[in-house]
Amino acid sequence: MCPHAMIPYKPKNPKTRLSAILSQEEREQFAFAMLEDVVSAARDAMCSPVVVGTELFDSDLVQITVKDADLNQALNEILPTVEQNILILMADLPLADGASIRRVTATQDDVAIVPGRGGGTNVIFMKDPKKFHVDYYGTSFSKHVAIAKEAGLSVEVIDSFRLHTDMDEEDDLVELLIHGTGRSRAYLEGLGFSLESEKGRVRVARKR
Amino acid sequence: MCPHAMIPYKPKNPKTRLSAILSQEEREQFAFAMLEDVVSAARDAMCSPVVVGTELFDSDLVQITVKDADLNQALNEILPTVEQNILILMADLPLADGASIRRVTATQDDVAIVPGRGGGTNVIFMKDPKKFHVDYYGTSFSKHVAIAKEAGLSVEVIDSFRLHTDMDEEDDLVELLIHGTGRSRAYLEGLGFSLESEKGRVRVARKR
Repeated sequence: MCPHAMIPYKPKNPKTRLSAILSQEEREQFAFAMLEDVVSAARDAMCSPVVVGTELFDSDLVQITVKDADLNQALNEILPTVEQNILILMADLPLADGASIRRVTATQDDVAIVPGRGGGTNVIFMKDPKKFHVDYYGTSFSKHVAIAKEAGLSVEVIDSFRLHTDMDEEDDLVELLIHGTGRSRAYLEGLGFSLESEKGRVRVARKR
Repeated sequence: MCPHAMIPYKPKNPKTRLSAILSQEEREQFAFAMLEDVVSAARDAMCSPVVVGTELFDSDLVQITVKDADLNQALNEILPTVEQNILILMADLPLADGASIRRVTATQDDVAIVPGRGGGTNVIFMKDPKKFHVDYYGTSFSKHVAIAKEAGLSVEVIDSFRLHTDMDEEDDLVELLIHGTGRSRAYLEGLGFSLESEKGRVRVARKR
């Protein structure tokens, strides 16, 4: 069971590493489409999504608003007040689905973590949030494993490419166009993005 | 149960997309270290590894030798002769472990597939090889799903980042240095590779 899924989200000027291929307005719309996909996946896994946003945005979603610079601080102020288990899920995981999130929340350990591409942390599930704190940015995956171990909490690393594949760079969009089924894939296709084969791996191309 | 794991392998001049950071000799040694990691993971999953190599190489491993250009043809000549289920596992999956491979071979469906980064196919498990054929290169993941469906075979896509993360490009090595535990990680570290933080994701750096 997963009562709450907290989803950090930045509505204004997100995903700046995609600036070469998407305008600011497009990045904002793309980020919102990904958020909708993540919310939908969380609900499929029987979690109640709560968006932890850097500012209030127009939506029916349950929102907590925090300062951009203070994601760690904001989450670390919330965690000690939480009496139940909690899931923290990044908003840029459009390949997330109910099955992959359920594998996380079904852990037999105290904490379950899914690493992101390049050393980040995409998902953390903790059964006793009072005993844990977060330290995002940089190589946060190894930091979170260490935090759990220092607190005497057992950790399971969940092996999921759907939850591992965050959307930060152009090559990440390839995976969304291959494996995505939701709004963010449709949004990119609507902008003219498609797959293009070259030697080796497939890349994305955009028709304007 | 998994009687045989066929592992395609190219001993000479492999992994050319890593040429900017590894010499040919280093790429050959790195590819062999990855093969050893994959063989070890296959054995942990109770599979018997058979290397399908493009030439004979010095090793105690069971080897079948085929022409480089004919991987599809070679495999498609072997498959109809196989009476048992079979696993085909790429040799550049150094994050593979027994648990991830067992998730593949435990499928309830006729065929299980793990997509690689950028649209390839990293692992295929088939219960009745006579009914299947392979079509590697390009966006082979979607081709293999289509081949199974045309043959009336049910397909499970296994959600594993350990088996999804093939080593073709420099950024892939980041995942090996973070999550690897075997010989290929040690090989890279012995060459002076380590993780380096920059804005956003971690990259690899090499001290000479």
